[in-house]
Amino acid sequence: MNYDHIFDQAIDRLHAEGRYRVFIDILRNKGAYPNARCFAGHNGPKPITVWCSNDYLAMGQHPKVIAAMEEALHDVGAGSGGTRNIGGNTHYHIELEAELADLHGKEAALLFTSGYVSNDATLSTIAKLLPGCVIFSDELNHASMIAGIRNSGCEKRIWRHNDVAHLEELLAAEDRDCPKLIAFESVYSMDGDVAPIHAICDLAEKYNALTYIDEVHAVGMYGARGGGISERDEAAHRIDLIEGTLGKAFGVMGGYVAASRKIIDCIRSYAPGFIFTTSLSPVLVAGVLASVRHLKASSVERDGQQAAAAYLKKAFADAGLPVMQSTTHIVPLMVGDPVRAKKISDILLAEYGVYVQPINFPTVPRGTERLRFTPGPSHTVEMMDELTAALVEIWERMELELRRAA
Amino acid sequence: MNYDHIFDQAIDRLHAEGRYRVFIDILRNKGAYPNARCFAGHNGPKPITVWCSNDYLAMGQHPKVIAAMEEALHDVGAGSGGTRNIGGNTHYHIELEAELADLHGKEAALLFTSGYVSNDATLSTIAKLLPGCVIFSDELNHASMIAGIRNSGCEKRIWRHNDVAHLEELLAAEDRDCPKLIAFESVYSMDGDVAPIHAICDLAEKYNALTYIDEVHAVGMYGARGGGISERDEAAHRIDLIEGTLGKAFGVMGGYVAASRKIIDCIRSYAPGFIFTTSLSPVLVAGVLASVRHLKASSVERDGQQAAAAYLKKAFADAGLPVMQSTTHIVPLMVGDPVRAKKISDILLAEYGVYVQPINFPTVPRGTERLRFTPGPSHTVEMMDELTAALVEIWERMELELRRAA
Repeated sequence: MNYDHIFDQAIDRLHAEGRYRVFIDILRNKGAYPNARCFAGHNGPKPITVWCSNDYLAMGQHPKVIAAMEEALHDVGAGSGGTRNIGGNTHYHIELEAELADLHGKEAALLFTSGYVSNDATLSTIAKLLPGCVIFSDELNHASMIAGIRNSGCEKRIWRHNDVAHLEELLAAEDRDCPKLIAFESVYSMDGDVAPIHAICDLAEKYNALTYIDEVHAVGMYGARGGGISERDEAAHRIDLIEGTLGKAFGVMGGYVAASRKIIDCIRSYAPGFIFTTSLSPVLVAGVLASVRHLKASSVERDGQQAAAAYLKKAFADAGLPVMQSTTHIVPLMVGDPVRAKKISDILLAEYGVYVQPINFPTVPRGTERLRFTPGPSHTVEMMDELTAALVEIWERMELELRRAA
Repeated sequence: MNYDHIFDQAIDRLHAEGRYRVFIDILRNKGAYPNARCFAGHNGPKPITVWCSNDYLAMGQHPKVIAAMEEALHDVGAGSGGTRNIGGNTHYHIELEAELADLHGKEAALLFTSGYVSNDATLSTIAKLLPGCVIFSDELNHASMIAGIRNSGCEKRIWRHNDVAHLEELLAAEDRDCPKLIAFESVYSMDGDVAPIHAICDLAEKYNALTYIDEVHAVGMYGARGGGISERDEAAHRIDLIEGTLGKAFGVMGGYVAASRKIIDCIRSYAPGFIFTTSLSPVLVAGVLASVRHLKASSVERDGQQAAAAYLKKAFADAGLPVMQSTTHIVPLMVGDPVRAKKISDILLAEYGVYVQPINFPTVPRGTERLRFTPGPSHTVEMMDELTAALVEIWERMELELRRAA
């Protein structure tokens, strides 16, 4: 039994597939987003432009967020010092949960240390509480939802992505009286498409199923107050559990679930991933409070993001670059090969100071490797024109196909 | 199928057992630890003394930690904006991982969003990479380790708490050639006892098993540089994976694992709980860097904590209070009933301004409910004398037994 040999083989497999990951070493420049400094492989930090951040609205640099965090840091200190039950329940946590419940029109909300943990802990706990529960999961659901579903130990049925006819077929095949949970996302982050929420809720009502939506790539960005696609589509009241993140559009860190008081009380009381972990730092919670409150009242950031995304999609399409269909703020460019995607990304960084991470397996299926751009309100038209020109140059240099419109 | 009814029953079970949890609503006062403000059930905040925090050394309020966080907040902003692979790998993360690897004398380290996630992600990933792996787990291992072991899908063998003879029996019963992983803690946080690390490592060598130690209640507090019990006992080099937290003695938030470069590379590349989550906020990471560096050089905090724990244990014992055997900084008082433990805690808070959370199932086994005190360098002799007198008064009022020495 040679452990080293087994670990070596595991790493060798990644190199062989061209998907061994090297993390780029950066620091963002507060107040100058999307500008940042890149450390690795250079003589001292080199300026770059970030095109792949999930700090979609640059709220991580918003003066209100920074001020709130600074105030909390000086008022109560760095960490919470305990689990929510043992010393780690601060007044900030209680206020933020009320704010998030209000954002989604729910009775209650519950904070987690991350969106990943929200999904894993909530899905596994809710399903375990329902004897014989069957979970219906969209085939493109995020890894954290898949983890929660697997960890529930329940039966699961995978429905083809956004295919409600297939979902209905699977629902109809189950016993009418067994508990059912339909789990899906609103915005699928790697393709940028959106779930047919009302059609799914229609089926949930018809077959008496609970509904669980992951809105991590939508909260803060859609709906008049940033309540996500479920707010925009006026469907929030039809969904039992709405899960979101505090680490993307809200710009800080953490995750949450909003639902009825009863369901939240169950998760709070039974989920090991909630109970047995140090609560979010009050400094983070204070920052998120400022961010959520700001985005409830201001649509400037949302409008700026949508305008930038529309501009970049059109610029890519006009230039013949293989931009994927996306109805959201996410702008993916299909490459279809991990080695080529990494090469394009490397040239962009080394020659153009453009940082966009290649996306490969297991984040997307093999053969659909891509570059994923997330323009936001701070990306200017000039930046987008320069980016498009750089990509065209690289596409030509690498002899890749450009499909210019006739 | 009535979902509400099932959720109601789940909550009713907790009330019936007297273990429904109510979170106390507090804010700590930076610079004045263990003083805090309590909100719930009072007319405005009321001053309290915190006796159950895991910010063991009050590093969450240390001027160096606060200053480092403030600097990072103004330099780079609130959140990291992405996963480690996609935009969320900052220079702070790289520096902290090097600092933590050095703390434990290992080649590499890897950050996670929490200690819970460190255990869950690492144990499940490492075990899955080893075909046919059998995991040997101490019966009192933390919920997060149990989650990781369960999520690995591997066979597990539970050995009686700290019983190396039983561990050997179980190891000897397995095929010599199957991969084996022994998982245990250094300090068991609810009893305050310590694992026989060298004896366990002897067995690991004899039976060719990997070793995994959870040092979350020891890092920062034991060893000349705060490397934990494995440093104090000069055993770190014998252990394959050392897991720790950034949310207890280091005073901030997050978790990590230190190991060989090869093992860390495998976890980094294969663990969904690491890959698919927004990285720790750089503000937190900057604070931890300052905290770890300070505690590598300073033993004042460790010495103060040990002195306080020794004083409190003696004061409790002299007063006849049922203090449990503990060889560490943790001072548990056995009550043995969830309703009584909560009542004592409620009186302490309402009448004495003392905050100590009752610990009940599932954190400890039923029938061993307790109050768990964590005196630190900032708890004065006067505070401890007052606390002891308050407990004696309550013990007498509730007609509980005091076992004064003859």
